[in-house]
Amino acid sequence: MRGSILPMNTADLGLPVDVPSTALFTDQYELTMLQAALKAGTGERRSVFEVFTRRLPEGRRYGVVAGTGRVLDAVENFRFDADVINFLRERRIVDEATLKWLSSYRFGGDIWGYPEGEVYFPGSPILRVEGSFAECVLLETVILSILNHDSAIAAAASRMSSAAGERPLIEMGARRTHELAAVAASRAAYVGGFATTSDLAAGFRYDIPTVGTSAHAFTLLHDNERDAFQAQVDSLGPGTTLLVDTYDVTEAVRTAVEVAGPELGAVRIDSGDLLLVAHRVRQQLDELGATKTKIVVTSDLDEYAIASLAAAPVDAYGVGTQLVTGSGHPTCSMVYKLVARAHSADAEAPLEPVAKKSLGAKSSLGGRKWAARRTDEQGVAEAEVVGTGPVPPALADRQLLVELVKGGEVVAREPLDAVRDRHAAARAGLPLSATQLSRGEAVIPTEYL
Amino acid sequence: MRGSILPMNTADLGLPVDVPSTALFTDQYELTMLQAALKAGTGERRSVFEVFTRRLPEGRRYGVVAGTGRVLDAVENFRFDADVINFLRERRIVDEATLKWLSSYRFGGDIWGYPEGEVYFPGSPILRVEGSFAECVLLETVILSILNHDSAIAAAASRMSSAAGERPLIEMGARRTHELAAVAASRAAYVGGFATTSDLAAGFRYDIPTVGTSAHAFTLLHDNERDAFQAQVDSLGPGTTLLVDTYDVTEAVRTAVEVAGPELGAVRIDSGDLLLVAHRVRQQLDELGATKTKIVVTSDLDEYAIASLAAAPVDAYGVGTQLVTGSGHPTCSMVYKLVARAHSADAEAPLEPVAKKSLGAKSSLGGRKWAARRTDEQGVAEAEVVGTGPVPPALADRQLLVELVKGGEVVAREPLDAVRDRHAAARAGLPLSATQLSRGEAVIPTEYL
Repeated sequence: MRGSILPMNTADLGLPVDVPSTALFTDQYELTMLQAALKAGTGERRSVFEVFTRRLPEGRRYGVVAGTGRVLDAVENFRFDADVINFLRERRIVDEATLKWLSSYRFGGDIWGYPEGEVYFPGSPILRVEGSFAECVLLETVILSILNHDSAIAAAASRMSSAAGERPLIEMGARRTHELAAVAASRAAYVGGFATTSDLAAGFRYDIPTVGTSAHAFTLLHDNERDAFQAQVDSLGPGTTLLVDTYDVTEAVRTAVEVAGPELGAVRIDSGDLLLVAHRVRQQLDELGATKTKIVVTSDLDEYAIASLAAAPVDAYGVGTQLVTGSGHPTCSMVYKLVARAHSADAEAPLEPVAKKSLGAKSSLGGRKWAARRTDEQGVAEAEVVGTGPVPPALADRQLLVELVKGGEVVAREPLDAVRDRHAAARAGLPLSATQLSRGEAVIPTEYL
Repeated sequence: MRGSILPMNTADLGLPVDVPSTALFTDQYELTMLQAALKAGTGERRSVFEVFTRRLPEGRRYGVVAGTGRVLDAVENFRFDADVINFLRERRIVDEATLKWLSSYRFGGDIWGYPEGEVYFPGSPILRVEGSFAECVLLETVILSILNHDSAIAAAASRMSSAAGERPLIEMGARRTHELAAVAASRAAYVGGFATTSDLAAGFRYDIPTVGTSAHAFTLLHDNERDAFQAQVDSLGPGTTLLVDTYDVTEAVRTAVEVAGPELGAVRIDSGDLLLVAHRVRQQLDELGATKTKIVVTSDLDEYAIASLAAAPVDAYGVGTQLVTGSGHPTCSMVYKLVARAHSADAEAPLEPVAKKSLGAKSSLGGRKWAARRTDEQGVAEAEVVGTGPVPPALADRQLLVELVKGGEVVAREPLDAVRDRHAAARAGLPLSATQLSRGEAVIPTEYL
């Protein structure tokens, strides 16, 4: 799988349009640190930064790496053009020497990381950025923004798709989040196992299949439900999905089958006790001869509601709010930390591990790390092994980090379907309890070597 | 206040770059409804859509309208250019007649709404969009995305700024949310009362003051803390903010004042028991003669933590995760509903109220609404009055909705500082219990006339 990374053509920024630069998706302190380090002569010190999280969101069994493809494009597009330089100059954010340095900035280092779609655990070195301090420190915010957002959505999506089993999930949360976060959320949901999206921008940008037919407004626009259904079927054909809960569901289902015939594609239920209503509607549809008409449900679903409908005659789930808000965990707690640095830019200068040493939960482990997933005899994951020394031979072929950027050049583009497949495979390789929805600890421990 | 709306020059999309079109920030069903309505001849029916929420997030006393300025730009930029039309054609999302209609689309109707920064309550008609069904139905998703996201952030910001009192709040959550949601979040935080942001894109796009000096990585880069502080002070001057919790706080504070002198601008504490540490650091700074050196705290703060530090010697708060995730409520539950429609496009045709009538929480009130805030003799708000009939004379000058778009032209641009001031004034006009942090009901009831 990891060898089959393919080139991808589109600039993958989560936007329906290209963004000429990602350089301002940056916290000001990165530029002031740059200025001070350049002046002190320490900016060129060879440095290693790592992205990791100290913990999973409470109760979650595994995390999902998502956004890596967007990170690669953000790094590639991280340039300070004249407009940006002028802004920084006018606002006196950094001095002229730093502006000069920035105006020719291009990341020229190396990035390794967990391939997108992989699962992760506390301490997993999800991304490793190496180069001069100056070139690496600037990337902190944009990398974290992308990974923290996209991974939070993908983790929720993964739980939902696991709860849904073979039934397809429709992403329809655009209206519940920022209009461009929505596009990235659709992408992350697809990685996590969703089948389609309602968001046209996500279809345009990432070629994710899009779906959608009608809302209550369409029924209310017409003089009665029959007129509305007739108008929809006349235009979209009998294979369309009719929304049956604007007035009385039973009457609506009857009208729907009368208008569309037994070839009616699906009915959608967006309110009420979905378990009860789905059973009634299925029975009614069958009695009307519409045995192949599907039932789509879409009311404030999350992974628990989806699981509770497993025995109901439901054919597809539409998920909005809970997907785009990460089902209670709208962000991850990934951090970007300097873990090692040399005393010079020299590639031969020894790297010294560094780490914050204050008391409390914010301390971290210094040193450039490798990671491998140890499996048992059946091939099921049993530990996330993270180390700073040599990789034990038994784990050599189970290493998780792959090369993503080499000397500033992106070397690991891949299609989104490959990422989606990787996630399904990675999740399938975890112990069965990984997909239990009940709260618990990380499904495998992280061991440090 | 409401008369003083001024023109604004920038296209206000929450992006550090312009977006040529917002037309794809749209759920597919809006286009399929359009197609069916155009074919049925109902697409031209004069229609009224309203944005409102059925409830505030649990425990919250008031909501904050934010994003209106971004909505106006999104509506203005809602065009289907050739690329978009080709995409819709290739994916067979709508038919050729609909594509032709879309290619000349421009919203030509009227929009009224609560001015940005106002507070709102359950049932408040936050935005009212009027025109043909066809032209209005398309705007649902982009309007809701913006208002649901930005209002959620502004509501959290408002609680935090109320808890912080006169002390300034720094928005530093970019790394915890989507890179462009972060820009909109900075804007919404500013509306809610934050003073500054770390996000350079928000400074570039909205002219919000930006701040930032250094992270732990900068200290770790250097051979010791003294070298790091010296490098920072040499470059940024003694007025800078030194981060003092990489190793031992007491030692760091001593070193900081030795290096920068008593003119040291501020120290930042990012971990530990902030209440305890702030007191110790204040005492130490005073003993060292650095009586004017400020203390900035920045560790996982929310409104409750801010309030708990009210008696601590803290001069400014930096807030990240909890701000950009809406402090437990990352989205609002605003909906966009058809509330009235005529049988024709004729401006004289009577508008008939319409509403979904299914059982359960999702029913809503039909009819085009006005809203006014009734106040007591002291001028304190005592009820949000929402009605569909004539406005009672006593409430005529307390109406909340203002004209935002007239015949497709935006008529209500205003600078962000005016919005920020309006929010402060609106919050100040609520009963005192509005700013209690404890969970409760909406601070004033919504009455329907």
